[in-house]
Amino acid sequence: MSKILRINMSDQSVKFEEVPEKYKYLGGRGLTSTMTFDEVPPTCHPLGPNNKIFIAPGIVSGTSAPSSGRISFGGKSPLTGTIKEANAGGLASQKIARLGIKAIVIEGQAPAGKFYLIELNKDGVKFLPADDLVGKGMYEVDRILWERYPSKPAIIGIGPVGEMRLLNSGISVNDMENGPGRYAGRGGLGAVLGSKGLKAMVVDDKGGPGVEIADKEAFRRETKKLTDALASHPVTSQALPSYGTAVLINILNEAGGLPTRNFSAGRFEGAAKVSGEMINEVVTKIRAGGAGMVGHACHPGCVIKCSNIFPKPDGSAHVSCVEYESAWALGPDCGIDDLDAIAELVRICNDLGMDTIEAGVTIGVAMEGGLLKFGDSQGAIALLNEVGKGTPLGRIIGSGAAFTGKALGVTRVPTVKGQAMPAYEPRAVKGIGTTYATSTQGADHTIGYTICPEILGVGGKVDPLAATKAELSRSFQATTAFVDTSGYCLFIAFAILDIPSGLEGAIGSVNAVLGTNWTVEDVGKIGISILKTERKFNELAGFTKADDRVPEFMKIEKLPPHNNVFDVTDEELDAVHAY
Amino acid sequence: MSKILRINMSDQSVKFEEVPEKYKYLGGRGLTSTMTFDEVPPTCHPLGPNNKIFIAPGIVSGTSAPSSGRISFGGKSPLTGTIKEANAGGLASQKIARLGIKAIVIEGQAPAGKFYLIELNKDGVKFLPADDLVGKGMYEVDRILWERYPSKPAIIGIGPVGEMRLLNSGISVNDMENGPGRYAGRGGLGAVLGSKGLKAMVVDDKGGPGVEIADKEAFRRETKKLTDALASHPVTSQALPSYGTAVLINILNEAGGLPTRNFSAGRFEGAAKVSGEMINEVVTKIRAGGAGMVGHACHPGCVIKCSNIFPKPDGSAHVSCVEYESAWALGPDCGIDDLDAIAELVRICNDLGMDTIEAGVTIGVAMEGGLLKFGDSQGAIALLNEVGKGTPLGRIIGSGAAFTGKALGVTRVPTVKGQAMPAYEPRAVKGIGTTYATSTQGADHTIGYTICPEILGVGGKVDPLAATKAELSRSFQATTAFVDTSGYCLFIAFAILDIPSGLEGAIGSVNAVLGTNWTVEDVGKIGISILKTERKFNELAGFTKADDRVPEFMKIEKLPPHNNVFDVTDEELDAVHAY
Repeated sequence: MSKILRINMSDQSVKFEEVPEKYKYLGGRGLTSTMTFDEVPPTCHPLGPNNKIFIAPGIVSGTSAPSSGRISFGGKSPLTGTIKEANAGGLASQKIARLGIKAIVIEGQAPAGKFYLIELNKDGVKFLPADDLVGKGMYEVDRILWERYPSKPAIIGIGPVGEMRLLNSGISVNDMENGPGRYAGRGGLGAVLGSKGLKAMVVDDKGGPGVEIADKEAFRRETKKLTDALASHPVTSQALPSYGTAVLINILNEAGGLPTRNFSAGRFEGAAKVSGEMINEVVTKIRAGGAGMVGHACHPGCVIKCSNIFPKPDGSAHVSCVEYESAWALGPDCGIDDLDAIAELVRICNDLGMDTIEAGVTIGVAMEGGLLKFGDSQGAIALLNEVGKGTPLGRIIGSGAAFTGKALGVTRVPTVKGQAMPAYEPRAVKGIGTTYATSTQGADHTIGYTICPEILGVGGKVDPLAATKAELSRSFQATTAFVDTSGYCLFIAFAILDIPSGLEGAIGSVNAVLGTNWTVEDVGKIGISILKTERKFNELAGFTKADDRVPEFMKIEKLPPHNNVFDVTDEELDAVHAY
Repeated sequence: MSKILRINMSDQSVKFEEVPEKYKYLGGRGLTSTMTFDEVPPTCHPLGPNNKIFIAPGIVSGTSAPSSGRISFGGKSPLTGTIKEANAGGLASQKIARLGIKAIVIEGQAPAGKFYLIELNKDGVKFLPADDLVGKGMYEVDRILWERYPSKPAIIGIGPVGEMRLLNSGISVNDMENGPGRYAGRGGLGAVLGSKGLKAMVVDDKGGPGVEIADKEAFRRETKKLTDALASHPVTSQALPSYGTAVLINILNEAGGLPTRNFSAGRFEGAAKVSGEMINEVVTKIRAGGAGMVGHACHPGCVIKCSNIFPKPDGSAHVSCVEYESAWALGPDCGIDDLDAIAELVRICNDLGMDTIEAGVTIGVAMEGGLLKFGDSQGAIALLNEVGKGTPLGRIIGSGAAFTGKALGVTRVPTVKGQAMPAYEPRAVKGIGTTYATSTQGADHTIGYTICPEILGVGGKVDPLAATKAELSRSFQATTAFVDTSGYCLFIAFAILDIPSGLEGAIGSVNAVLGTNWTVEDVGKIGISILKTERKFNELAGFTKADDRVPEFMKIEKLPPHNNVFDVTDEELDAVHAY
């Protein structure tokens, strides 16, 4: 019987609780969002004593299901003020699940300035002072902890940016090579851990009870269907393992939807230089034989393997990984076309504990504000390094794009609810703009990835420039809420949208673990009910439909090359959540 | 027949328009708020092309009515995101009114980086490049312009902080001695002028038609009643002219409601050293015979004369003026008990173009965040000077308290809707806390000054610690909306709350100008209708009752010496605007 683990940072007390009936069929985002709604006052200060962080593996995490190692972190976001779920791959999800833990609640606050390291294993929880880790970047923290704990535990932690409680601070999860680059990056939840005094947690699952599976035979059958689908769909079996997600650079550039130089154009002349194809060429040809790698898995049991290890010119490992959002945010959005500089910028984000999307968009805004020139990759590296020093400039940049825009008097700031937009231009791809605007969590692509039909022709084909996308966005948002609950990586969507047996396998494997009989229709319903919970939290926190909008400049300024504005009507946006 | 003057900064075009029927009986805040509602899209970016600044003298401004020289500036606030009206004394209101202008609309945006000086006189409007004024503080700007224009015009302008479009930038209006210290300070409207490229406007009323008065005989009769009341009430005839508004320092300290060291206590051991009594002693005894002055009028025709000129140790003028809010914000709230340091801090605010309340509370938050120690007056001076340099640290401080709190990870941040609280502790004076929370414009004392009955025994006597204050706050908020519309200084309230003939005179003189027959009851109704307009704008901008709250820390942390939390219920707060 799995448990909820409650860790109180105020008095360093710990409780294992039975899982209440209402949480039994939830995991991942469904669980973190429901618990946030149940336990966190919506108007509380996100960095005050009443916010909490909920950590939950997905439903099938910790089993042998393919690509199922996602872990969700939830709470009230300091960046957006909304409810927040950010998820990551890496080692933590499977190890926590195998300890028989359904969710970890981090609550209370350690005395100001005090930071703890928490050990979690089959024997329970131990608090240790983290004085020797404080101030250190996540690469060093991970290295120290793997040296100290030879079992190679999962490590959840925050970098200096989280310690400083700055708005763009993510939560790091390590992967199999002891890299900290698996980030629950979005929404500043690292600052919440910082406000609680939790520097890092090591999780060793040795001797844990494992994940209970209600119907093992069904589980084997259904996971095989999914695995087969993943192995046969061209996106999950060829494009992603070969080129990583950065395969999208050229595709979006071609579509005129690759936000360039702080969202002032939709096409970047240097796109090919930072594309997935180029990453593949660097790894497999130009710097072949070194530590570089494509087709790298971010957690054990991933069959998609979209990650990579990007090598330095001398062949040694630079960073894992240079994926689409990071390559774009720290590349084209800043007018930068140099993969080595981008790799270094990603490394700094991973080390200091920042979301790469927010960081890149922030640099773009700073460039717009005249702090440095578009394309100045060395200036961008210096600027990000400033964040770790905690200088006033570093604190501005570490607080994200909206904050930096205010500090510099910049009005072209591509955010929704204070969160930076990802790598798809709303004016060129209006369904994703509809998702950004109406997301329960600020601008976010993963929350309703309409790019599938709008750009990739996956799950149908839809004109990206058409402005009637409420139904499409709603459907993706609902399904995604379920996927984020399951523990499966969202990328299984590519396969299950096109291959019916894959969809059966995904739902069937969840049913097999829980002993449920959910259908495709139930999946939509469960997704909608999660969205309702999240929307209700936001409503109580003071959000209204006026917040479900893209920034004004996108409605006024035409975006080349299509010379389109964002013309999705307010009525259409409001229709997304009219369920 | 008075006109509306529309100034378009995009193409430097100008239009004089007839006053529509619906605006004929409005002035000051009633007019700026109604026009903001009518012309500004509530969700627009406050620093974008769709925001506007409305400038309106009050109804009786420009006449011989006593203490009637207030001018309102309105628009959407960059600091709060709400509708905003900030008003000031000085020369501008009367001169604009006497030119027969009911309101000036500043719209459009000059090309980025371009700033203009606008000349306004009986012949119309002239645009001049302001290149020689850009980057200069308001003391120098005013001096240059009074040298250039020997008629000693009114000057409206912004300092470097407004040029940088930082959130804590006010709009300066000069007084009779050429000082820029009359500020429409709150809400960052200086940044809006900055975004439009308006550095300064000089207003010469020579040859203007003057203000039409519908019934001159009645006007003489009614203004006399008001003048007599102001001359007989002890607050307006003795306390304010002798000690200025800083007479409140000792009173609030005694009441345990003087926010001290970033709102961590309600009593300051150094209060007496920065009190109105001490200011009086410095001016009239310790540094007597110099340029210091109490009983100083901020505009011609003021009979209350609450302003002062604070002298340096050598007797020369330091700054006008050291009033209660400034003395408190830059004094006790920062743990500072040195009047000379406070005078210098006020001077810097006036020069750079910042609101003193926001600036002081920001320094208090910075002290809480460890940037400098409480009481470090020289550090505070250096910190404010940083703002003018436009350094990253200066940009943080120049962006106000909420912003600085985020940059430093401070959670004890005394703001509502992003605007810093003034000099009355909500936990010790719950009516004013009710006003802060429910104000249409962020934390603001002048918007519903329940201090009168709660602390001063003016207009009745109410227990400041009692938590049922919705009706009291509503009544003050409604009446204030009318006073802010009339052009009268809010301080006439002290007299008209206690002296019935004074109230008659105030309303009667407004009637005499407009030819109306408004009663006391009408005043309340007009006030409520202005509040409704403002609330409607805010609602469309996305504000809800969740925003009508004091910060969480005030509900958790007990404030010495009364050891009270803010316990006004949400229901009580929501009742304020239930009309």
